[in-house]
Amino acid sequence: MEFIEGMREKKSVDLQRFLLAEEGTSLCVEGAVHSVRDMGEIAFVVLRRREGLLQAVLEKEKAESEGSGIREGDFVRVTGTVKIEARAPHGRELRICQVAWLSRGEGPLPLAIDKWKLKTSLEAKLDRRSLALRNLRERAKFRIQEGLVRGFRDFLYGQGFTEIHTPKVGAKSAEGGANLFKLTYFHRPAVLQQSPQLYKQMMVGVFDRVFETGPVFRAEKHNTRRHLNEYTSLDFEMGYIESFLDICEMETGFLQYAFDLLRREYDTELGLLQIELPDVSRIPYVRFDEAKQLISKKYERRIRNPFDLEPEEEELIGRYFKEEYGTDFVFVTHYPSKKRPFYAMDDPEDERFTLSFDLLYKGLEITTGGQRIHDWKSLTEKLEKRGMTADGLEQYLDTFRYGMPPHGGLGIGLERLTMQLVGEDNVREACLFPRDMSRLEP
Amino acid sequence: MEFIEGMREKKSVDLQRFLLAEEGTSLCVEGAVHSVRDMGEIAFVVLRRREGLLQAVLEKEKAESEGSGIREGDFVRVTGTVKIEARAPHGRELRICQVAWLSRGEGPLPLAIDKWKLKTSLEAKLDRRSLALRNLRERAKFRIQEGLVRGFRDFLYGQGFTEIHTPKVGAKSAEGGANLFKLTYFHRPAVLQQSPQLYKQMMVGVFDRVFETGPVFRAEKHNTRRHLNEYTSLDFEMGYIESFLDICEMETGFLQYAFDLLRREYDTELGLLQIELPDVSRIPYVRFDEAKQLISKKYERRIRNPFDLEPEEEELIGRYFKEEYGTDFVFVTHYPSKKRPFYAMDDPEDERFTLSFDLLYKGLEITTGGQRIHDWKSLTEKLEKRGMTADGLEQYLDTFRYGMPPHGGLGIGLERLTMQLVGEDNVREACLFPRDMSRLEP
Repeated sequence: MEFIEGMREKKSVDLQRFLLAEEGTSLCVEGAVHSVRDMGEIAFVVLRRREGLLQAVLEKEKAESEGSGIREGDFVRVTGTVKIEARAPHGRELRICQVAWLSRGEGPLPLAIDKWKLKTSLEAKLDRRSLALRNLRERAKFRIQEGLVRGFRDFLYGQGFTEIHTPKVGAKSAEGGANLFKLTYFHRPAVLQQSPQLYKQMMVGVFDRVFETGPVFRAEKHNTRRHLNEYTSLDFEMGYIESFLDICEMETGFLQYAFDLLRREYDTELGLLQIELPDVSRIPYVRFDEAKQLISKKYERRIRNPFDLEPEEEELIGRYFKEEYGTDFVFVTHYPSKKRPFYAMDDPEDERFTLSFDLLYKGLEITTGGQRIHDWKSLTEKLEKRGMTADGLEQYLDTFRYGMPPHGGLGIGLERLTMQLVGEDNVREACLFPRDMSRLEP
Repeated sequence: MEFIEGMREKKSVDLQRFLLAEEGTSLCVEGAVHSVRDMGEIAFVVLRRREGLLQAVLEKEKAESEGSGIREGDFVRVTGTVKIEARAPHGRELRICQVAWLSRGEGPLPLAIDKWKLKTSLEAKLDRRSLALRNLRERAKFRIQEGLVRGFRDFLYGQGFTEIHTPKVGAKSAEGGANLFKLTYFHRPAVLQQSPQLYKQMMVGVFDRVFETGPVFRAEKHNTRRHLNEYTSLDFEMGYIESFLDICEMETGFLQYAFDLLRREYDTELGLLQIELPDVSRIPYVRFDEAKQLISKKYERRIRNPFDLEPEEEELIGRYFKEEYGTDFVFVTHYPSKKRPFYAMDDPEDERFTLSFDLLYKGLEITTGGQRIHDWKSLTEKLEKRGMTADGLEQYLDTFRYGMPPHGGLGIGLERLTMQLVGEDNVREACLFPRDMSRLEP
């Protein structure tokens, strides 16, 4: 009988090994042919690997015997010797002795992915997503995105949170309304979850602190640069809070942790995208109504609706805090009750407002959170007051009936956070395969 | 302006602090009242926290002034002094001085969650999921599940994989067929993804190695102990492989890593569930046709269909390898082409079989994986041979047209892996909120 005993060492090496090898070492490297520059006597063959680029050099003689017709889009295994060469990227190159093809592309790529910037429209990039992302800067955005999710989880594991997986298909969703995608589930009507809200609250009674990173679905008929109909939500919910500010603290802690992680482990990508990580050592917080007053005064803008915040107002609040306090982030607190779902806890001092908040990043809402109602009677009363039925909420409500700690939580839109951090102005740039009103493919 | 500066220290302490405190120390602890045992002069009040249980003691006198009517389901903050007491769990208890209620439940819980084992049917547990999981052993299963997902990600990060998030709603899915949930997406027909297969393959050309941990949806009309209609799939896909055995090696590496992580960080839960982690230092692999022969001989079972593996045969293969080699795991390789999707690579030595595998764990398939076709022409030919159209696969196919490395990957059913590890015999026991043909709530 034969056995697998775990990972074996491979013949080909990674970029790190190439960079640390002594001059003259013979090495074997695999990669995609990112670009070929034929200089006559020699050709520069730049290989793309997950860790970055590597310059290989093919001499004319060798090219004829070994590397005949090597071209962009080919996948190769090259063997060669390391040569120190100040003009090459990383200060070294691989002098090719042998080329083996792993596969060949069918002619030139339809996008100039080897350019520094892909000067292509968003639509064109999305139409050839799997090719466009081969550009180093395009793919770097998603490495940054990985760092953010990873930071979220690692930080929360360290804070005693348990990771959960909740269903995306259900009979009912947290906020109901028109923004639900509907489907048929074995002859029964079902919906796609807008948020894991009700599930994560139920799990607070079990694990005290829970989080989930998963897709959510919103059938909103918004075709804007800020909306996706399916996105990745970073959700957490925590029990035993003293105030909704505990949630803001936890989020601030996450941002501090995640940016440190990016600084430590994603410096290549930060460099490629020329990202300067924002200061999150302290984040101001301001009441919703006060924020409206502040920008109304400073930017001479009339308050049209005291219970609503328009996208332009969000932008102005962002601008205000940048100008006055030099910060990209601001927590806006105490959103009006009318604008929050039934489970939000009203402010006992003024029930028109809730113990909730949004986090704005460069004037864009990237998080909604707050304290939830944990008392069973208050919850059933609130449902009734809103004219909602308990249909389909039986298990949710029973959870509270048998006791729940004070708790709260939040949801962070991963693509929006990424978009603001990498400096894109359309959220689709921060989503591998965006879903919007017109895009359902690939 | 006020600022949030990150996490502040709280008044109440965690279990660790309680366990390390000197005798006589005054502490404040928050928790759920897990059980109350009234002994006349004193009452034992067991508090449940995320880290475990903690015994507090309420003297009769105090009970009358402070802890009046304390009962199961209440959430409290108790202040008291630490007392060493050999008979108490952890060898210490908290002598209560003061009780503050965070919230109160409405009377006794309908399930005896404080018992060592919840002697309740699966159906009854699922009907009160958020309460049933307050039982320590019930919730421990999902902590083990967390360790598995966490191990998967951490191991793959270390192996140079990039985490991706792919859409769950699409115009087309990887394997098509009758097992798709259908929905309407802004007046267009859409489906829920059965697997991130096509997306992760497309991303191999970008990141070389990718993984995703997310929900998948299968409208299978199977009502068995092994099937869920929505489950969490641990998927990875890697380029530059030499053989599909590279995938098996990576999976073996993951299992080794994850079990080590469980051993290090989840020992409480392993203890609660009395789990002995299986040996994964080496995992045997055997061809599909050979495996059938082996069990046919040993267990005197006639081979009815040489191109199919029945669930009973899977179980027997598991039994065979346990008996002959003492292992819980076995890779079964070279599945028949007919049983594998179009993207599976056929074995060039015998095209009736594929370069693919399943991993069986105690006789249950927990993984399907293999090498994929990376050559554009072979892929289009295979599609044609199967009578499939390229409709909706344009971007997928174009990815190959412009070059792709040899690659392969796998998908692991998280709930099945958890179920086998914790020793349950129904996959619903390893899913927080299972979705099956009859269960769509909560």
